[in-house]
Amino acid sequence: MKVVIVGGSTAGFICSLAARRFNKDAKIVVIRRERKALVTCGIPYIFGTLLSVEKDLLPDKLLADNNIELVIGEVKSIRRDKKVAVLSSGQEISYDKLVLTTGSIPVRPPIPGVDLENVFFAKKDPDYLQKLLLKLEGAKDAVIIGGGFVGVEFAEQFRKRGLNVTIVELLPHCLQLNFDDEYCVMAEEKLRELGIRVITNERVEEIVGVDGKVAMVRLAGGERLKADIVLVAVGIRPETTLAREAGLKVGEMGGVWVNEYMQTSDEDIFAAGDCAEKYSFFTKKPTNLRLASIAAREARIVAANLSQLRVKNAGTIGCFATMIGDLGLGVAGLTERAAREAGFDIFVGTATTTDKHPGAMPGAKSLKVKLIFDRASKVIIGGEVVGGATTAELANIISIMIEKRMSVEEIAFSQYGTHPTLTASPRTHPIAYAAEDALLRA
Amino acid sequence: MKVVIVGGSTAGFICSLAARRFNKDAKIVVIRRERKALVTCGIPYIFGTLLSVEKDLLPDKLLADNNIELVIGEVKSIRRDKKVAVLSSGQEISYDKLVLTTGSIPVRPPIPGVDLENVFFAKKDPDYLQKLLLKLEGAKDAVIIGGGFVGVEFAEQFRKRGLNVTIVELLPHCLQLNFDDEYCVMAEEKLRELGIRVITNERVEEIVGVDGKVAMVRLAGGERLKADIVLVAVGIRPETTLAREAGLKVGEMGGVWVNEYMQTSDEDIFAAGDCAEKYSFFTKKPTNLRLASIAAREARIVAANLSQLRVKNAGTIGCFATMIGDLGLGVAGLTERAAREAGFDIFVGTATTTDKHPGAMPGAKSLKVKLIFDRASKVIIGGEVVGGATTAELANIISIMIEKRMSVEEIAFSQYGTHPTLTASPRTHPIAYAAEDALLRA
Repeated sequence: MKVVIVGGSTAGFICSLAARRFNKDAKIVVIRRERKALVTCGIPYIFGTLLSVEKDLLPDKLLADNNIELVIGEVKSIRRDKKVAVLSSGQEISYDKLVLTTGSIPVRPPIPGVDLENVFFAKKDPDYLQKLLLKLEGAKDAVIIGGGFVGVEFAEQFRKRGLNVTIVELLPHCLQLNFDDEYCVMAEEKLRELGIRVITNERVEEIVGVDGKVAMVRLAGGERLKADIVLVAVGIRPETTLAREAGLKVGEMGGVWVNEYMQTSDEDIFAAGDCAEKYSFFTKKPTNLRLASIAAREARIVAANLSQLRVKNAGTIGCFATMIGDLGLGVAGLTERAAREAGFDIFVGTATTTDKHPGAMPGAKSLKVKLIFDRASKVIIGGEVVGGATTAELANIISIMIEKRMSVEEIAFSQYGTHPTLTASPRTHPIAYAAEDALLRA
Repeated sequence: MKVVIVGGSTAGFICSLAARRFNKDAKIVVIRRERKALVTCGIPYIFGTLLSVEKDLLPDKLLADNNIELVIGEVKSIRRDKKVAVLSSGQEISYDKLVLTTGSIPVRPPIPGVDLENVFFAKKDPDYLQKLLLKLEGAKDAVIIGGGFVGVEFAEQFRKRGLNVTIVELLPHCLQLNFDDEYCVMAEEKLRELGIRVITNERVEEIVGVDGKVAMVRLAGGERLKADIVLVAVGIRPETTLAREAGLKVGEMGGVWVNEYMQTSDEDIFAAGDCAEKYSFFTKKPTNLRLASIAAREARIVAANLSQLRVKNAGTIGCFATMIGDLGLGVAGLTERAAREAGFDIFVGTATTTDKHPGAMPGAKSLKVKLIFDRASKVIIGGEVVGGATTAELANIISIMIEKRMSVEEIAFSQYGTHPTLTASPRTHPIAYAAEDALLRA
């Protein structure tokens, strides 16, 4: 079996390695446009913490170590009749199974001035990001357009290196697509505490340049923000040009249509990661969640299904976390808002505790958890966490509980280990404790 | 309904508060011998980190806030015919439902010299521990007899305040009842790195005193260890005097016998925590695990079952964690050794990664996970973790997976969120990654 993977970012890279694990004898080829590829979720951290693009690269050595051929080149077309990928060089690479992991590209909003010099996007391109890193050296004032995860993380990292940073967000809150209001407010308070200006409910009217370079951002409300760097982070869209041109079906949200086995409308072509259409675990409807962790899981599922259909994707739960200064924020599944919008009747439970115990332990940080349950089934459908170092793994506990459709009662009486330096107290492990609270409203 | 809880340590304290949540109108009385009660898992941390007994006390104010009556006194007997608890003062307190949470007491091994001054045990008694805290001020050389969790944690805390510390363990490894050898070895290496001497496979022959005070510990091999403090931590045994005298059934492991609803052989008397018999989740046989986190869960189950039988205890998984210096160790369910001893045919998967990503992120620490599966069902029955701040919550993820009897395939393809500052990379989330490894041996 010869497997050809088109795209070598998160999904492609992981798919190739997992494919090798599951298929000892397959010939596996990864075709990648970029000479080097990035650890995508690390991108914002290049600019304040790592201070180097090199430190955020995928370890290509692993490909060689696993007998995976890496071809640097651009696939121009897929000839499904002949089962070959055609490179821009004219070279044809044949496949038995092809995997599309072409990723996504940042949305370019129709704001006047968006093409000016020193306006950047979170592109997965090492050379482009290196340019941004150099530009930041002389910069003083940065404006981030978009207060989602990416915008907030860039803002925090830009601030860390001393820039004056302003976030401009169209919605009433930063992170509003991912968290309920009270969690967004905690995030915004932390951003402000770090010295970041946060403007919400506001639209950027124009990016104003002087001599072709960014000088200022003009808001709909009239305010003008000084800026020598603008980062635009208003979302991403799946990169599906190749798939469309090859006549593959595309989904409602613009991703390559896939079935539960991650096969496209051509059964010998799979898709995984940002380029693939996602379906909600809860409603089975198309959803717009696109994350490296989702890409990683889809890549694994594809790898397992290459030689025989074996693993089904029951839909995307959406589990992720971020860190603003010392404040961790994590979420799994639906927020209260999203659950209500999807038509669920819900009840919730909350817990407030500390991430060490007793509270007098040095370094103990406040920890809050909210769990969201479907009233009809009493099954968990979401949860949010704010805390410290354990935030993401707490969100992962919630994600597993959602996947296993655990009831509020099961969660309240589950077995959780605790330790003074590592967790809340046995009385207040936040997940059990929030479930106990929810039981009173079940 | 009037609920009387005998014992106000972890299980009693939590049971009273949970009982109030589930029974708004019940009269709830906690009878406790000690004027003040300890956060039990915090006890070792009094001696190197908190440096105060006061900082490790249960917040009694919560009892008053929840309209729970706290009676300081000793229950001398339970008159089941009259449904009263009789205090040593002669006072009789009537009950509709009684909960035994009488805890455990440290095992006193038959070592000559164990009664000498400056030989201490991990007793849950604030005044006793205060005495130990004062004694440590002038001490130089401490010997810890027993290298289980309690012994290791005391050793680490004694060392933190500058004492010369030696652990003497009878088994080939410290923590051997809880971890497989390779994890024990990592723990021992860390103890040695901290400057703690670790002697395993060795028995204490005698504690030698001068003028009635500890001066030295003599080992079976002949070595003599200087000691002005000895801490004995060779296990605990359930405190069941009251239950036995009341004619309640006692289990094989010496705990008060309970059914799945945590009722004793008298249906109006429940038991929870260290005093109650435990049954393995895996084999349903009696087991010797006794932990504050287990006590907490049992206390919640009892609280839920007081007014009507509602929640079953499917058995004890055993999920816990400890920290030695900056090294976290966590475990859930069976080790390889315990699984084989119980008769399981097993296969395992392992993963090594970092707890941040990319590995160049500052503060990234090594993270290792081992998952253990039953070959017949391919279901997870155990897991071990070594890492940093997220160790215990990773063990908790494994605990939930065990409880939900997840298969190796489900675990490999589950949804885990990731973030550069909070977790391993999407490719190497250690639980998915170890399951993927295990799949190759399934």
